[in-house]
Amino acid sequence: MNNKEKGKRSKLKIIPLGGLEQIGMNITAFEYEDSIIVVDCGLSFPADDMLGIDLVIPDTTYLENNIDKVRGICITHGHEDHIGALPYVLRKVNVPLYATRLTMGIIENKLKEHELLEITDRHVVNFGEIVRLGAFQVEYIKTNHSIVDAAALAIHTPVGVVVHTGDFKVDYTPVYGDAIDLQRFAELGREGVLALMCDSTNAERPGFTPSEKTVGRTFDSLFQEHRNTRIFVATFASNVDRVQQIINTAYKFGRKVAVEGRSMVSIIETATNLDCISIPANTLVDIDQLKNYPDEQQVIITTGSQGESMAALSRMANNVHRKITIGPGDTVIFSSHPIPGNEKPVTKIINELLRKGADVVFQDAHVSGHACEEEIKLIYTLVNPRYAIPVHGEYKHLKAQAKIARELGIEKENIFILSSGDVLELGRNSAEVSGRVPVGAILVDGLGVGDVGNVVLRDRQHLAEDGIVIVVMSLERSSGILVAGPDIVSRGFVYVRESDELIEEARATVDAVVTACLDRGITDWGKLKGATKDALSDYFWKKTKRRPMILPIIMEV
Amino acid sequence: MNNKEKGKRSKLKIIPLGGLEQIGMNITAFEYEDSIIVVDCGLSFPADDMLGIDLVIPDTTYLENNIDKVRGICITHGHEDHIGALPYVLRKVNVPLYATRLTMGIIENKLKEHELLEITDRHVVNFGEIVRLGAFQVEYIKTNHSIVDAAALAIHTPVGVVVHTGDFKVDYTPVYGDAIDLQRFAELGREGVLALMCDSTNAERPGFTPSEKTVGRTFDSLFQEHRNTRIFVATFASNVDRVQQIINTAYKFGRKVAVEGRSMVSIIETATNLDCISIPANTLVDIDQLKNYPDEQQVIITTGSQGESMAALSRMANNVHRKITIGPGDTVIFSSHPIPGNEKPVTKIINELLRKGADVVFQDAHVSGHACEEEIKLIYTLVNPRYAIPVHGEYKHLKAQAKIARELGIEKENIFILSSGDVLELGRNSAEVSGRVPVGAILVDGLGVGDVGNVVLRDRQHLAEDGIVIVVMSLERSSGILVAGPDIVSRGFVYVRESDELIEEARATVDAVVTACLDRGITDWGKLKGATKDALSDYFWKKTKRRPMILPIIMEV
Repeated sequence: MNNKEKGKRSKLKIIPLGGLEQIGMNITAFEYEDSIIVVDCGLSFPADDMLGIDLVIPDTTYLENNIDKVRGICITHGHEDHIGALPYVLRKVNVPLYATRLTMGIIENKLKEHELLEITDRHVVNFGEIVRLGAFQVEYIKTNHSIVDAAALAIHTPVGVVVHTGDFKVDYTPVYGDAIDLQRFAELGREGVLALMCDSTNAERPGFTPSEKTVGRTFDSLFQEHRNTRIFVATFASNVDRVQQIINTAYKFGRKVAVEGRSMVSIIETATNLDCISIPANTLVDIDQLKNYPDEQQVIITTGSQGESMAALSRMANNVHRKITIGPGDTVIFSSHPIPGNEKPVTKIINELLRKGADVVFQDAHVSGHACEEEIKLIYTLVNPRYAIPVHGEYKHLKAQAKIARELGIEKENIFILSSGDVLELGRNSAEVSGRVPVGAILVDGLGVGDVGNVVLRDRQHLAEDGIVIVVMSLERSSGILVAGPDIVSRGFVYVRESDELIEEARATVDAVVTACLDRGITDWGKLKGATKDALSDYFWKKTKRRPMILPIIMEV
Repeated sequence: MNNKEKGKRSKLKIIPLGGLEQIGMNITAFEYEDSIIVVDCGLSFPADDMLGIDLVIPDTTYLENNIDKVRGICITHGHEDHIGALPYVLRKVNVPLYATRLTMGIIENKLKEHELLEITDRHVVNFGEIVRLGAFQVEYIKTNHSIVDAAALAIHTPVGVVVHTGDFKVDYTPVYGDAIDLQRFAELGREGVLALMCDSTNAERPGFTPSEKTVGRTFDSLFQEHRNTRIFVATFASNVDRVQQIINTAYKFGRKVAVEGRSMVSIIETATNLDCISIPANTLVDIDQLKNYPDEQQVIITTGSQGESMAALSRMANNVHRKITIGPGDTVIFSSHPIPGNEKPVTKIINELLRKGADVVFQDAHVSGHACEEEIKLIYTLVNPRYAIPVHGEYKHLKAQAKIARELGIEKENIFILSSGDVLELGRNSAEVSGRVPVGAILVDGLGVGDVGNVVLRDRQHLAEDGIVIVVMSLERSSGILVAGPDIVSRGFVYVRESDELIEEARATVDAVVTACLDRGITDWGKLKGATKDALSDYFWKKTKRRPMILPIIMEV
């Protein structure tokens, strides 16, 4: 069988290793014969029931098992849900990285922190450039998003072109650089596109996402309205365009700008070095210098717009920031929307700011970075794909995009709502889910990667709910005679100083059970522990309607 | 000093014991000389950091210390945040209860469960009726809200009338009973009102809340659109009018209705007994009978619209309901909005329903039960109070109502944003916050009321974050020789089976520390425990960047 014959029969496999049915942890493998490329390598933030977990990364067993085939990782843009797992994945899958300029700048900061910079092969890609990786040619196409230098990818494969939008919106008047390269999408569409993998985040929202520039005009009018106060603006660290517009407006109104929050400072430094932001001379000042200017000449750009309790805004609102306290007369502008799940912490900080006497502006100073329904229709119409694979979103978002694709005339059987781990095999005229690969979420807790799993999480949930009761006793090894205890120690169960009676009665209950067991000559400590556990569990449930974790410990002396 | 002179000098005290700067736990004391009345007695649901807590009730120490003065508790309506603490508070403050018909019906169900019905003095009050309680005359005024029989109170006191709206909206075309008694508000205003305590929940929202009737029309068109499928409608159990409208529409379309969810069944039974709901004959069927009808003749009204994992909707979506499973072809209508903080669980259940193939309707089938900006203006204008005391809401809501009051011409110094515990003293021409009484949140966990406090919660948070490591050792009492251990047991820290090395090294670390202490002749077990804790804490931080709770236990044998 020669290569041509083989090529005819080979299929392209698209394998999402994360990112579907959830927000975050975007990572997708594209496989053709002996070539694999990976698009994005993101993390997700822990769900509410993942107690104590810092972040979640994808299981890349499939890539590790096929490491010889993996040619590189192509990143679409510099947000955590697209790059955040790199420091973990690169340790196991150390392949070349491809990204645009600012994206690579942000990645490099991250790799430095994890001492991976030296050992990672990095390639900055320009828009319009094509990266050759085995059977694939990956073309970077300019898009717009809430971070500079976001790219869509046209992945040219032997069976056809797959267009992956990354996260995008259509912004005809972007703050920095060009509008999304709609002409290239149109050309690709004219030439024929096999499949479109399109951002679904805002697929439920009708209409068109407004231009980032509209936020600049809002800043102008808010600064006009609050001429006489100090102004704080809270936004996402990575939204360089937003920061640019705040600085522009500040400059217009003769204000100095200080930046607060570690991630914000770092990203502005990177953006400045790469000429992705342009700051007029003498506008940016150190936070320590602010005191040299009257309130009405100050602007503080800060992190913490999601109500994060450790971020700068929260510390300034709660009087625990080293240098700045927000109080009466200050104006605080939230240039952000709460990410779903953050509504309560954001509301909490707004209440706190209002209570401190600050004026809080919580509307109008934000636009989304994702395409709404009409933009999604535009891209579908330009690209005109045979197959539609909605990506980036929870199930309801994917479903909403599928509905849009149907309305645009794509047949139901040509639309694939995939799950992470599905293997979608594409030929020139065929597409089917042909199997599964192992996928999963690996939990990172401190330095531990994957050492906290379901057992540990279940224990943490149990401990969180009702605490723990420990029963210790010492038994003489040979005779099985009780030489000390049983003693009871509890944490997180009841306030012990006010529960003497409960604990003493529990001790007596255990004592009776243990004595009875030992009298019957039981020498299997497992049985003794079981009896102790059952007796205490029943007793506490009867008395308190709570089920603390009960942990009997027997020492042999 | 005769009574008249004394009366001249006496002031009315308004003392919120809960409900301000938070949603829920509404309870306010009104005190004049030797008379105290209480308005509402609600609970709140635990904040995210109150691990394992079931519900939160107000500290009523002030009432207990003044029990001889307390004349009664007047309830405005039957929602948990206005009645939920009654079973706890009545045990300590057993005074007569006053409420409208349905409100009392719901309270009685609750008192029955807590075996308090017999010992509680209950009075059903009609709208327009005045209850005389010591120095107070409390007049019940008809309002509209998302539960039938909601009342505002006009509290006639020796220094003037205080109008308390309770939770309300203005509904000119209510589903059941009359519209809010605007004429009585107007009369009171004309005669002169000292202070208005008005619902702030929707004070940030412009315009007018639509009539509940509009939801009925939405049901009609949704049922028309989904003629051929089984229909589920999820809503709040207590919204009897909503249930009435679902039943009306079902009847129009020739469908049978089953009700699922314990609280829903209970409240419909109560409402039926009190003629607050009217169900056409042969419309309501038992859930077991549904199978006798084709899908397109079934409607299931269910609890769980807030994504509660144990409620009927969630169980039906996740195939763990005993009788009903939601699948392809079913239509699920959410007749509710997520309460702030519930966005994520609600989204989770929507994703699950869509994944099961159901059609989910999540918009338009709900209206709020609270007054928006224009309704608040209407009440202020009718009542024309001297003093404004915004109630029911977080700080930002109270602040928004204060702004509305200002716009309507009430002087800034006549608007009081109170905190729970503040004592507002009102005379005919004076108002000032004159002091504080003790207030607080008492946590209920199972049968325990108040036995979980900050210490226990802090332990639960610590346990939830990083788990617990227990170190046990047995020492010979007199000699202080180590006769067993140290042994290490952990829960919720690391997955032990894969962390042998870590745990063994930790054990060796403790062993070394203990041996060193004992060799130096230390016999103070407190010091020994401290040294163990420090050494292990450092070791684990170095190795894992986690801080489990470390609990050394020493047994003397």
